[in-house]
Amino acid sequence: MTLLKETIERIQPLDKDTQNEAKNYIDGLIKPIGSLGKLETIAAQIAGITGKVKGNQMKKRGIVVMCADNGIHAEGVAVAGQEVTTLMAHCMAKGVTGVTVFAKEANADCVLVDVGINSDDVIPGMIHKKIAKGTANFAKGPAMSYDDCIKAMEIGIEIVDQMAEEGYDIIGTGELGMANTSSSSCVLVALSDVTMDEAVGKGAGLTDEAHQHKKDVLNKALALNKPNANDPIDVIAKVGGFDIAGLVGVYLACAAHRIPVVVDGFISAAAALAAVKLCPLASDYMITSHCSAEPGFHAMMKALQKEPMLMLDMRLGEGSGCPLAFHIVDTALAMVNEMATFGEAAINNEDFVDIRE
Amino acid sequence: MTLLKETIERIQPLDKDTQNEAKNYIDGLIKPIGSLGKLETIAAQIAGITGKVKGNQMKKRGIVVMCADNGIHAEGVAVAGQEVTTLMAHCMAKGVTGVTVFAKEANADCVLVDVGINSDDVIPGMIHKKIAKGTANFAKGPAMSYDDCIKAMEIGIEIVDQMAEEGYDIIGTGELGMANTSSSSCVLVALSDVTMDEAVGKGAGLTDEAHQHKKDVLNKALALNKPNANDPIDVIAKVGGFDIAGLVGVYLACAAHRIPVVVDGFISAAAALAAVKLCPLASDYMITSHCSAEPGFHAMMKALQKEPMLMLDMRLGEGSGCPLAFHIVDTALAMVNEMATFGEAAINNEDFVDIRE
Repeated sequence: MTLLKETIERIQPLDKDTQNEAKNYIDGLIKPIGSLGKLETIAAQIAGITGKVKGNQMKKRGIVVMCADNGIHAEGVAVAGQEVTTLMAHCMAKGVTGVTVFAKEANADCVLVDVGINSDDVIPGMIHKKIAKGTANFAKGPAMSYDDCIKAMEIGIEIVDQMAEEGYDIIGTGELGMANTSSSSCVLVALSDVTMDEAVGKGAGLTDEAHQHKKDVLNKALALNKPNANDPIDVIAKVGGFDIAGLVGVYLACAAHRIPVVVDGFISAAAALAAVKLCPLASDYMITSHCSAEPGFHAMMKALQKEPMLMLDMRLGEGSGCPLAFHIVDTALAMVNEMATFGEAAINNEDFVDIRE
Repeated sequence: MTLLKETIERIQPLDKDTQNEAKNYIDGLIKPIGSLGKLETIAAQIAGITGKVKGNQMKKRGIVVMCADNGIHAEGVAVAGQEVTTLMAHCMAKGVTGVTVFAKEANADCVLVDVGINSDDVIPGMIHKKIAKGTANFAKGPAMSYDDCIKAMEIGIEIVDQMAEEGYDIIGTGELGMANTSSSSCVLVALSDVTMDEAVGKGAGLTDEAHQHKKDVLNKALALNKPNANDPIDVIAKVGGFDIAGLVGVYLACAAHRIPVVVDGFISAAAALAAVKLCPLASDYMITSHCSAEPGFHAMMKALQKEPMLMLDMRLGEGSGCPLAFHIVDTALAMVNEMATFGEAAINNEDFVDIRE
């Protein structure tokens, strides 16, 4: 608990003065005010994180992928077999899955963490921090102990502490673990006013029967476990997973180290929601990448008060949208670093404000 | 007319066999079927364009920015003064505007074309193809002659012919010209069943009065000019602009050369719509980048039967979203080129189809 508590205590607000200075600077670039939309918001946010308006660059970038099995899988809520987690983890380590291929394209590293895969394999290229071979089935009782939940969060913190030391400028979040959308849906319902019907929408692949079954299982699990909505640690311990808990630690540590962090996908967003409940200031360090095709994603964004940037109908998970988000951030920073101001261009910006036409 | 006619005649359908082969190959990659959404669609589209499934790379990339003044500006439909077109063109040529800065970040070239700026300046770094110093005010009569419209289209074709010779793998489209959203709105209304109310939505920056004025001016201009909906050349000659006409040529020539082309923003999309009306097959070579914050953009996409990929609230124009689209295309191609198949990974894909959970 010490590391978790200390990390939360270290989180400071954005540097609002620098953020505002950046906003003003961006308003003075040769374009109608506000016409570069979210690129402007992101650039100002990063200025508020780093404390400088110009010269920000996200050169060293990494994606932390928390891999763990979720015991709720036993209830038949997932299509894929649980062994797929292990098989996919091996493929990730070889660099041939979505997130690893896309990361390479975007000059980003993947930091793969086994925080609880249900396998004895010691996968080369992964960081081995296995707490247990998957969580317990939370349809029967809590997914993990309160202490193990803190332990998983602190694993996430330690990973980012190390990455901060290595000079990472931006970090993305991803996960791997069959059935972890079930855990994420429960975390969302427990921590917000979103209903299970909203959190477990009807996806293209689920039959009516399977959809109803999933909701029934998760509603019963929440009724059985009675997670305390005011204690995100209790919520994740009871109906979350090691993967989600690990990512909570990643978000908190990124905020503590003033490193911008990309929220990518439904599961990562559930962890982000828990992190924000633990420390609302953590939200200011987050950038949301793609709009997941997972049906509950809109409810998740509403709870998190964020908006995604990419509409690609992606629903792979893994953090596969992070590399694309990194490109968008690069573009936002290039805007500040390289576009001319009205002054430099000798254009009268009185003639050019608000809208183009 | 010869070059335009010949170019249209050279346009062939996508190679459907290769496109389907790519779809099947992508379904065999280690991920649930369809879970990479539009990345999958784009990769298969490009396979259908190039005729090969693997090994596609968009190394040499350029953005053609057609710059021209639009005479309708005289009716007070734009906030910025007309001289801003010239000032911004100088800035573009210096590489300090949105599109030029973002292009550099994405290793793309900008091909800047003066097809009708209202200025005697010979701007270094631009291709000089000025037809006239801006179009006529189409509130009083046609914007240009039918012949000049074809001439502007053929300028776009010649630019792309040259780029094809230089080995460009992908081309983006952009524009610069105060008041060109007015021309684009008229082109949209003339070529589709979209109404002026839909095409000229109420943007954040327009007062109620200015919004109504713009719609009144454009409705009257359409009534005066009576463009022939069955002849896109007539439509653009009467209520379009040299910039839009030039971009029509770019789209047609890209399709003729089997080069994927990015549609970026409201004005470029109006040109894309005209190109598709001239040759429906041209649509298959187009990739739509960002969702413009221009209020009529949704109606434009409906008419074009396309969907954007990026939700960034951008409304700068210039083709500023093309560099981001290039990054997405790179990612889609990396997926095909580098992800493992189920066979390679020895995972039973029967267990993994349809949805992740």
